[in-house]
Amino acid sequence: MSAQPASAENVFLTPQGFLDHWQGHRRLTRRVIEAYPEGQFNTFAIGGMRPFGTMAVELLRMAAPSVRGILTGDWTQTVTADPKPRDEVLRLWDESTKEMNDLWPRIPASRFQETLKAFGQYEDTAYRLALYLVDNEVHHRGQGYVYLRALNVEPPHFWER
Amino acid sequence: MSAQPASAENVFLTPQGFLDHWQGHRRLTRRVIEAYPEGQFNTFAIGGMRPFGTMAVELLRMAAPSVRGILTGDWTQTVTADPKPRDEVLRLWDESTKEMNDLWPRIPASRFQETLKAFGQYEDTAYRLALYLVDNEVHHRGQGYVYLRALNVEPPHFWER
Repeated sequence: MSAQPASAENVFLTPQGFLDHWQGHRRLTRRVIEAYPEGQFNTFAIGGMRPFGTMAVELLRMAAPSVRGILTGDWTQTVTADPKPRDEVLRLWDESTKEMNDLWPRIPASRFQETLKAFGQYEDTAYRLALYLVDNEVHHRGQGYVYLRALNVEPPHFWER
Repeated sequence: MSAQPASAENVFLTPQGFLDHWQGHRRLTRRVIEAYPEGQFNTFAIGGMRPFGTMAVELLRMAAPSVRGILTGDWTQTVTADPKPRDEVLRLWDESTKEMNDLWPRIPASRFQETLKAFGQYEDTAYRLALYLVDNEVHHRGQGYVYLRALNVEPPHFWER
């Protein structure tokens, strides 16, 4: 939970490097959403888990609103939680991509070592919150891969971003 | 693929911050391996995918050997690819944890912005290779969650590290 001591000799990943990494993942997740048969997007699931469409909406509710929150301190949720058709998710996905690319570079680098309370409830340092957003996306997308395989759909290559 | 310009004003994540993040994920993956019924570890799969035991061995073959490779330039593989009993995977997991904690802090920070060829074939900047190791672990662990749910086993909480 402690802040990382920042110095020129101590860089693993820069803020821009993190955004590039995240958007690479988001391009892949977009391809997984596209690969999904529309008729199964909000219905198919395994082992009592949620359909992939529900997970995709969760990702939309976490990505751009969190970037906005880290920049402005305003954690208002702007995406409704109800299931959406695949094409509507793709449209919101692309809107989020633009907003994230616009807002992220305006975040002062020092902010990433500060403690925030995301959406009024998740308290952690900003860089750890941001890492969690990617973790959560990769986690659920991995689950989406299993769903696609079970539906006999070939998912996109994991390593292509 | 370009290196990130490193300066004190440009830190998102430090090398130690990345190791802490990775080991947090590895603790969670260890709990997923432990949660797995031994009889299903190397056999159960969905949609023609690999059993989770095979994925876990892949993770062992990527983690400590990559840290060693980034530090020393020696990319020798030290873990055999054959399926292993769950308890043997856990033993190798703990050995890897110690080795990673020992070797990682010895990597000069500048190394992470250099281009490497991991295992003689995957060429990329070192920090991107390291990020990929975590991505791959979270991806396959997410698949392991679906397998566990399909087996009626409650997986550990994703957010606990």
